Amino acid sequence: MAMQFQPIGVIHTPFSELQGMPIQPAGAEGVRGTVEVFEEYRPGLKDLDGFSHLILLYLFHRAEGFKLEVVPFLDCRPRGLFATRAPKRPNPIGLSIVALEKIERGVLHVRNVDMLDGTPLLDIKPYVPAFDPRTEVRTGWLEKASQGVSGRKSDDRFC
Amino acid sequence: MAMQFQPIGVIHTPFSELQGMPIQPAGAEGVRGTVEVFEEYRPGLKDLDGFSHLILLYLFHRAEGFKLEVVPFLDCRPRGLFATRAPKRPNPIGLSIVALEKIERGVLHVRNVDMLDGTPLLDIKPYVPAFDPRTEVRTGWLEKASQGVSGRKSDDRFC
Repeated sequence: MAMQFQPIGVIHTPFSELQGMPIQPAGAEGVRGTVEVFEEYRPGLKDLDGFSHLILLYLFHRAEGFKLEVVPFLDCRPRGLFATRAPKRPNPIGLSIVALEKIERGVLHVRNVDMLDGTPLLDIKPYVPAFDPRTEVRTGWLEKASQGVSGRKSDDRFC
Repeated sequence: MAMQFQPIGVIHTPFSELQGMPIQPAGAEGVRGTVEVFEEYRPGLKDLDGFSHLILLYLFHRAEGFKLEVVPFLDCRPRGLFATRAPKRPNPIGLSIVALEKIERGVLHVRNVDMLDGTPLLDIKPYVPAFDPRTEVRTGWLEKASQGVSGRKSDDRFC
């Protein structure tokens, strides 16, 4: 069973190369980009301007193939792929939460972008904290690593 | 440009029909399910057991077609599709955050499932609150509606 998806837009960011990119939106604080939604889908943007943050799902379009163990940017040891946010995945779908500034003629002006310029957009969902876990959260190997995520770039590993 | 995705597993839940389903994980508090990861992808599950919560991406496999304006479960008025979590979307990809209890032979035992039994799994990502927005969050039309989300089911609209 294969599923076919079509891009509904394109994400524009200052990052044309993987080198030097922030590795998560937390490290992309303030970085501005735009999300261009294709004309046919623009009526679906109504009411979106009431939300301060959006979840973007997109294709990691420069990721080819995958390995089931990877050494993540934030660690020195191979980790199971699904315990990381590495872009090379069986289904290379990326997820980022961005801040929405304004919407103009089908173009979303956003902050905190951490994806490559030209990234194909798959979906936009409203970010709603009430839908998130409110109980105690453990984050495994990332427990210590994620504390340093803000300043870290994609060529700047621990080891 | 079309993209082809393949399921990496299947999600099993108590919900065989859309009627009566919780509409978000917050309303599925405690509901148990299992995520069966296909054998070839199981080495990628290493290190996942350190995380208390996971992001599941999956296919809304019973959703056909889409409308760019929908009346959401939590409201009475048509809203722009992308300002909702409605399943009928141009790319019908679902996103839920579930609590992980244990992993046994490639099967994840999870809580807070809000998807249909037999849902095709696309991806698993670790849930890391440090990657989420920490600034003030506004949730538009959902501002009041989401406060009542926990007890609400898919056949139980406001209006």
